[in-house]
Amino acid sequence: MVRNRLNPNELDQTLQELAGWSRTSDRDAINKSFKFKDFNAAFGFMTRVALIAEKMDHHPEWFNVYNRVDVTLATHDADGVTGLDITMARAMDRFAAL
Amino acid sequence: MVRNRLNPNELDQTLQELAGWSRTSDRDAINKSFKFKDFNAAFGFMTRVALIAEKMDHHPEWFNVYNRVDVTLATHDADGVTGLDITMARAMDRFAAL
Repeated sequence: MVRNRLNPNELDQTLQELAGWSRTSDRDAINKSFKFKDFNAAFGFMTRVALIAEKMDHHPEWFNVYNRVDVTLATHDADGVTGLDITMARAMDRFAAL
Repeated sequence: MVRNRLNPNELDQTLQELAGWSRTSDRDAINKSFKFKDFNAAFGFMTRVALIAEKMDHHPEWFNVYNRVDVTLATHDADGVTGLDITMARAMDRFAAL
């Protein structure tokens, strides 16, 4: 089930395929810092992500300053990382590469 | 000059007219936490702000999770709060009220 929490082994295995994503130190979540050319590119990325976040009804926590976007993903209902977060992480990596 | 750093007295006076804005505790900046109905409204606000940020070439630091947007404003070149930040704060308050 996509909303089931991944156990530590599953999560470690999945993270091996997700470049730049790490476990968050103080909670059951994953995070990545994205860097773009400028604010236009960073906010363009955020806008693409926002559209699929609404569609998935699954929203990131994110901090932006100029060309940097720091993202944390977790599934509130599951109190941890689920398949939803992995789907979102993959979509973000795809958008960041555009 | 709009890019001149406001001194503490000027800043305190200006903040009296800016509901919800406070000095940031650990640096010369101002901050406010905005709450919206949902993510759609929060990101709509962020998009409006992003457009004028690009136009002003003055960008916020902000954190978003679901319906909440925490904003910090400062002017990097001036190493503190300037008229640019006050203009941006007023624009944000205007957009948040829409």
